Amino acid sequence: MTTSSAPISSKPATFPKNAWYVACMPNEIDEKPLGRTICSERIVFYRGAEGQVHALEDFCPHRGAPLSLGQVCEGKLVCGYHGLEMGYDGKAVHMPGQRVGGFPAIKSYPVLERDGFIWVWPGDPAQADEQKKHPLEWANSPDWAYGGGLFHIQCDYRLMIDNLMDLTHETYVHATSIGQKEIDETPCKTRVEGDEVITSRFMENIEAPPFWKLALRGNNLADDVPVDRWQICRFTPPSHVMIDVGVAHAGLGGYEAPEDKKASSIVVDLITPETETSIWYFWGMARKFNPKDKALTAAIREGQGKIFTEDLQMLERQQANLLAYPNRKVLNLNIDAGGVHARKVIERWLAQEAA
Amino acid sequence: MTTSSAPISSKPATFPKNAWYVACMPNEIDEKPLGRTICSERIVFYRGAEGQVHALEDFCPHRGAPLSLGQVCEGKLVCGYHGLEMGYDGKAVHMPGQRVGGFPAIKSYPVLERDGFIWVWPGDPAQADEQKKHPLEWANSPDWAYGGGLFHIQCDYRLMIDNLMDLTHETYVHATSIGQKEIDETPCKTRVEGDEVITSRFMENIEAPPFWKLALRGNNLADDVPVDRWQICRFTPPSHVMIDVGVAHAGLGGYEAPEDKKASSIVVDLITPETETSIWYFWGMARKFNPKDKALTAAIREGQGKIFTEDLQMLERQQANLLAYPNRKVLNLNIDAGGVHARKVIERWLAQEAA
Amino acid sequence: MTTSSAPISSKPATFPKNAWYVACMPNEIDEKPLGRTICSERIVFYRGAEGQVHALEDFCPHRGAPLSLGQVCEGKLVCGYHGLEMGYDGKAVHMPGQRVGGFPAIKSYPVLERDGFIWVWPGDPAQADEQKKHPLEWANSPDWAYGGGLFHIQCDYRLMIDNLMDLTHETYVHATSIGQKEIDETPCKTRVEGDEVITSRFMENIEAPPFWKLALRGNNLADDVPVDRWQICRFTPPSHVMIDVGVAHAGLGGYEAPEDKKASSIVVDLITPETETSIWYFWGMARKFNPKDKALTAAIREGQGKIFTEDLQMLERQQANLLAYPNRKVLNLNIDAGGVHARKVIERWLAQEAA
Repeated sequence: MTTSSAPISSKPATFPKNAWYVACMPNEIDEKPLGRTICSERIVFYRGAEGQVHALEDFCPHRGAPLSLGQVCEGKLVCGYHGLEMGYDGKAVHMPGQRVGGFPAIKSYPVLERDGFIWVWPGDPAQADEQKKHPLEWANSPDWAYGGGLFHIQCDYRLMIDNLMDLTHETYVHATSIGQKEIDETPCKTRVEGDEVITSRFMENIEAPPFWKLALRGNNLADDVPVDRWQICRFTPPSHVMIDVGVAHAGLGGYEAPEDKKASSIVVDLITPETETSIWYFWGMARKFNPKDKALTAAIREGQGKIFTEDLQMLERQQANLLAYPNRKVLNLNIDAGGVHARKVIERWLAQEAA
Repeated sequence: MTTSSAPISSKPATFPKNAWYVACMPNEIDEKPLGRTICSERIVFYRGAEGQVHALEDFCPHRGAPLSLGQVCEGKLVCGYHGLEMGYDGKAVHMPGQRVGGFPAIKSYPVLERDGFIWVWPGDPAQADEQKKHPLEWANSPDWAYGGGLFHIQCDYRLMIDNLMDLTHETYVHATSIGQKEIDETPCKTRVEGDEVITSRFMENIEAPPFWKLALRGNNLADDVPVDRWQICRFTPPSHVMIDVGVAHAGLGGYEAPEDKKASSIVVDLITPETETSIWYFWGMARKFNPKDKALTAAIREGQGKIFTEDLQMLERQQANLLAYPNRKVLNLNIDAGGVHARKVIERWLAQEAA
Repeated sequence: MTTSSAPISSKPATFPKNAWYVACMPNEIDEKPLGRTICSERIVFYRGAEGQVHALEDFCPHRGAPLSLGQVCEGKLVCGYHGLEMGYDGKAVHMPGQRVGGFPAIKSYPVLERDGFIWVWPGDPAQADEQKKHPLEWANSPDWAYGGGLFHIQCDYRLMIDNLMDLTHETYVHATSIGQKEIDETPCKTRVEGDEVITSRFMENIEAPPFWKLALRGNNLADDVPVDRWQICRFTPPSHVMIDVGVAHAGLGGYEAPEDKKASSIVVDLITPETETSIWYFWGMARKFNPKDKALTAAIREGQGKIFTEDLQMLERQQANLLAYPNRKVLNLNIDAGGVHARKVIERWLAQEAA
């Protein structure tokens, strides 16, 4: 055990801006423009003439109206106040009765539609390289199914990273679904590989908790026999956490067991800072078994939604406590190593941006 | 087109205090005192012994209770906490068991009941001259009918003036009622006459939009023939905008057409700052045709209420954007000339007050 | 009449911390821990193994989660996030997989369960002496019955003390229940005995107001005969006000009349500051007649609840007014003497604490 202590709330939260963040789900911009604040930037997202996504500052250069209250006409974003039409590059292209050549431009943000999400790069556009986007291999394969949702939570995004990189909280926060005493009792190991932080825990010959019994049945496996269970949390900057989770019938290799002896999936956590103390939290689960079973996808999504809802109050109240005690230090124990190392990677990115 | 740019949000909004503002509708104080903040002053309005209106600071000199929670007894405002009775001049006149001669006075505000409204002068009482009140000729004539309402809006009063002095927004914000493409396509002209700013637009031989078809029928005129349409916006300080609007059967003189060939009215906008970023907005319509038709008055009032509701979200979100980007400049185009000149008149009044 | 004036809102409200305050009702912590802010301290209250009450800072030393979201397991408070178990003294006693010896302690607060309430001492524990708790004699006697409730009010606790130490407000705020003109017309007397401030008023040969007619009938006494009425308000620091109130059939000694000729009780006001501008207000009534009549207790409680609700808006709006006019002075009249002297006692306590 390490009992070092470090202030986590004594300075304002910050986030790297030169990074791809998930901005929204594709269907959020199918009907009309969407205004959303990301990394403290007010941004409007919309689809152009051929359906491509675009992102601009949500501020009409004419009189400051939010462009997200406007409409998309033939692929152009038209301000809902006085009809100014914006180009994809943030330059005004038309306004009734006006010559718009001298109008000041607004920011245009690099944006991508990939892997079932809309991604945005809030920082320097010159550095926006698609290759820097976190790969989501499962998103483009028929072997996988995905279901998820979006929560708006009033907390520093790093508190959510802490939460996901230390799953001992499952024993307490999620006692009736995925929590079990063995999580608490089994030490985890944390290692850092470049910018990636990995915390893993392996439990052998235990009873599966209720959520995993559901998953075993979903893969046509007995749910009343001992299992081996694993949790491998992978943080990558700026703020993504992918968690390999699953159970296999005991003694068959656990994480390495054959596909037909286990139920496994990836918990997907794409965390996007809204402000320094609020986030857009895109959560979901990607699974490799029975990918065509939509009823199973829906059942898992519903179960996961209930479980993740249990974290909301804790995170928001923890945030309120840290704001109320700005000089209080908290502990960094071994179970916190994942979050601690993730914060170090983020600090390194922030230092690079500042340089 | 002029593409000059000027900061409109970079310094706090202010308002002239030496001016008559509409405080409330007469019936708002018939039953009991009304507490309302006007130009950042907390004021209580009530009716005295013979029904005359009075206005005092909403602060009991005894212990600071709001007098608006009290009652009017035989024309005297009695504090609802410990029974202090206030005189119309802001001096305490009685309190059970006390001699009130030495009590500090509170402010008394000049107030008028005229033209169907209660008006208040938040500034120096010595300068409060009834002649300075904006005249509402239509308010005291049987030839006119009036219907209107009150909105509470979270925006700088000058954003509302901008809105009303540039009606190109009708094409976008009010597309289904009074908006039409021809507004946008027809240039407007702005002129300044002393403290008055006038922006006008004349459209010829067009189809009447839905609201004006209703009005034509209300004046027993065909609604399916081409019309000439006009909009003449008149700003007078501190913050009133009266708009001559109407349609006439085409080719008969437009604005100058005979009464029985047109449907015309005055859009009445009496804007009262509550704080620097909120207003009490008294809106209505005065019309000269069929003034005794109460069902028509109600129908027009309902239609106008729906239309004006469409501006609320835009104004409040525009205000929020300007507060979020305090250093961002906005454009002053030709269509903005009415608002720009109105702001100049206001600045002149503010400079006079400061001198 | 004294017309001295003093600023009551020009500096931040403060409260003695070395004092016993009521924290909650006993049943509020029977099922699970209770988080409540008292004197600006975030505190968690819970029952230990044998039902004794304990109070700790509501801040888990591990990561700052509120302990009040946790559970009590075999008398130990267990953090709901990662399972840290707290001892009654604020030291961590156990955490799965951790050695907690070096964990920083959190504050533990002296706490008592007495007289039907849970009491807390937010200040220096070394000075927490049970003897300093205000005695509530009636609370432990079968001759008395008690009923009451809890309000959360947005005002400085001293505004509530003012309210209770000057009952002339009953004439205005509670006109239909306990108010009557004679209160206003009868001078009160205020005296100070050490730290206690006593304001009393005696009215003779008057008609009982509705609430007291109910009480007379509750004691099987005629309610349609003249009565003598008394109000003896007793402030004791830090913030308790007990009021001897009652009516007796006229001419039989009033306050000193035999028990079977009067209906009398103690209005119980235990005021606990939450922040500088909000309070937890524990109100109730202790009565000596017909103590076993539970229906009467319920009827009195309901009536008192309605009456005390009438004060809420006045207190909160008065507070808002004082915050809006921070430099405005208010009057200290003879009727305010109780509150004025109570504030002096509080100032003396605050000076002692600061020394």
